[in-house]
Amino acid sequence: MKIAASLVLAAAAFAFAAPASAQFAKPEDAVKYRQSALFVMAQHFGRIGAMVNGRVPYDAKAATENAEVVADMAKLPWAGFGPGTDKVTNTKAKAEIWTEQAKFKEHNEKLVAETGKLLAAAKTNNLDNLKTAFGSTAGTCKACHDNYRNQ
Amino acid sequence: MKIAASLVLAAAAFAFAAPASAQFAKPEDAVKYRQSALFVMAQHFGRIGAMVNGRVPYDAKAATENAEVVADMAKLPWAGFGPGTDKVTNTKAKAEIWTEQAKFKEHNEKLVAETGKLLAAAKTNNLDNLKTAFGSTAGTCKACHDNYRNQ
Repeated sequence: MKIAASLVLAAAAFAFAAPASAQFAKPEDAVKYRQSALFVMAQHFGRIGAMVNGRVPYDAKAATENAEVVADMAKLPWAGFGPGTDKVTNTKAKAEIWTEQAKFKEHNEKLVAETGKLLAAAKTNNLDNLKTAFGSTAGTCKACHDNYRNQ
Repeated sequence: MKIAASLVLAAAAFAFAAPASAQFAKPEDAVKYRQSALFVMAQHFGRIGAMVNGRVPYDAKAATENAEVVADMAKLPWAGFGPGTDKVTNTKAKAEIWTEQAKFKEHNEKLVAETGKLLAAAKTNNLDNLKTAFGSTAGTCKACHDNYRNQ
């Protein structure tokens, strides 16, 4: 019993200590995952942008639905930047992501915070609030892209 | 004023009547969107599968977190199968998706329902409940793939 319990604890400790990349079968899956999450997020963010910029009529319900997806998706991509995923070629990710981990993480967390505010703003059903939060979120996207994404 | 109001109403009616594909800049974006959403969903569903099949230790909190993403993502891909997206090549989507729209929609709705049940099961913190709901959800994935996805 003691041995079995030790094995369970060891397995649990391993699972806890395993890097995020261990969640993926291979580094290419991690890359595809982060790109997929970012693409889905960008599509929904763009729909809010179309309202904010007057290209489509403002629809408070649609804005909130899109902001919900944006806020949900903003939490996901970062697990796909784990150790080993820097070796995958054909991506726009800059090497600085892995050499400036703490700074990159700050950007990730800023986006999660900003998209949370975007959702809150969307829920006020006020276009001006949405515009302000959209601009702030877009600035957060841009700051990270400027630092960590090749054009 | 009357004319302006009519224009606003006409614009609103158009937005309402516009097909889902109108949400995307081009059909290729719709395809990429649905593939991205399905890929993200599959990654998180697979993590629940790993617990259900005993490949990784059961972790009730992680199961629920993964089930939340699965249930959220299950709602998204279908907007990416709009009119015109059947013309995009290099996808596994079968033509029957567009010739059997009502039946395909039933499959979509079944997945949304099943992933809702999966999340509820995960929240019970009971591995047997999770196993049952996982099996049922996996069957729903398979039924749709068998009918509408080329291998």
